[in-house]
Amino acid sequence: MSNDSLGSPVRRVGRPRADKRVPEGDVSEHILAASAELFIRQGYTATTTRQIAAAVGLRQGSLSHYFPRKKDIFAELLDRTVEPALTMIDGLDPGLPPEVRLWLLLSTDCFNLASGEQNLASLMLLPEARSDEFDQFWARRDQLKDRYRDIIVAGLRHGSLSCSDVLLAVDATFGIVESIITWFERGGPVTSRGAVHHVARAALAALLTSPSEVDRVIAQAEALVAA
Amino acid sequence: MSNDSLGSPVRRVGRPRADKRVPEGDVSEHILAASAELFIRQGYTATTTRQIAAAVGLRQGSLSHYFPRKKDIFAELLDRTVEPALTMIDGLDPGLPPEVRLWLLLSTDCFNLASGEQNLASLMLLPEARSDEFDQFWARRDQLKDRYRDIIVAGLRHGSLSCSDVLLAVDATFGIVESIITWFERGGPVTSRGAVHHVARAALAALLTSPSEVDRVIAQAEALVAA
Repeated sequence: MSNDSLGSPVRRVGRPRADKRVPEGDVSEHILAASAELFIRQGYTATTTRQIAAAVGLRQGSLSHYFPRKKDIFAELLDRTVEPALTMIDGLDPGLPPEVRLWLLLSTDCFNLASGEQNLASLMLLPEARSDEFDQFWARRDQLKDRYRDIIVAGLRHGSLSCSDVLLAVDATFGIVESIITWFERGGPVTSRGAVHHVARAALAALLTSPSEVDRVIAQAEALVAA
Repeated sequence: MSNDSLGSPVRRVGRPRADKRVPEGDVSEHILAASAELFIRQGYTATTTRQIAAAVGLRQGSLSHYFPRKKDIFAELLDRTVEPALTMIDGLDPGLPPEVRLWLLLSTDCFNLASGEQNLASLMLLPEARSDEFDQFWARRDQLKDRYRDIIVAGLRHGSLSCSDVLLAVDATFGIVESIITWFERGGPVTSRGAVHHVARAALAALLTSPSEVDRVIAQAEALVAA
């Protein structure tokens, strides 16, 4: 549900690593964390595989053992901004009330965007992310948007959700969720838990037929997760 | 309340203009519209005053008569993303209930971000916008954020608004409003009116002590505006 796997290695970005005792998975995570930091700071084009290799203490030749091309690293980082929410919703009982499923999707998605040491989702705002090379990411993101649409449509039929225009509701909801990318500051005074709750709750309240139900729906959904 | 003054000149961007019969104000608007289009398409640094002059059919020397430096154009465009909301809220009766003032601020701000031919507010996402040269814009934007904070604090005292943390409430509300910059597509299938209503309503509902009141508060505020 999170990028927590990125947590501890990231703190050591820049330290020489990758001696023989380090498991391969850890090296991959180091490479991803160091690359994310470089991509966010200086952009995709300006970041070279030489810089990435240097940041994790690998020779350039060894780097390609883990990721053949720079774009493979970038694609993996982009994927991590959508996969946790997709995995959660695809594993969720479709028999649950739509408003409960909507809360779980909203909160998982917001949590993922606010988690991890790096603001990975900000990478999708880089101009290079629009390249055909990353079509698979945009297709997965569209699939995530489709999950929102399916739940909203189910909620309209069920009566618990309301909106004047499904396309608007999906775009605006997705946009409100992704607002976390632009305003939430890691290490700032606002906690990620607080940010996630406020934003996901706003998006849910806007779609409920009875907005007064918002905290009851959240409590119902959270009780299911805790069980 | 809007960038509508940018409306008609923008459509003629690229056409030679600025003959003697054109009022100066119109030429300024042409320059702003053509510059916005260039800045959004190719960035601030990559856009030259020569390109701007060519786009409006002026010699470079004449351009400086209207705007001495490129940064003056950029600063004016940035200002237009915050000034309408500041002007509205500073002219509003402070005796109105906080939740009513909050709706009017949210909807004016969202409307401004979704209005005009160009997505002017996206200019603040350009790396160059962070330069000290545009400190005045960021200070004005902070003032706008302060207006949100003042209203939210008044609403907490009044009892009509609730939140767990004022800083979080202000940042998240501002972030939800500005989400329009990243997802709303001019000329797309979603109307700006629909986008504004959905986003502003979500932000309001999240702060109301009784979210069930959301549509009553909106109706009360809209009736005041219509009167």
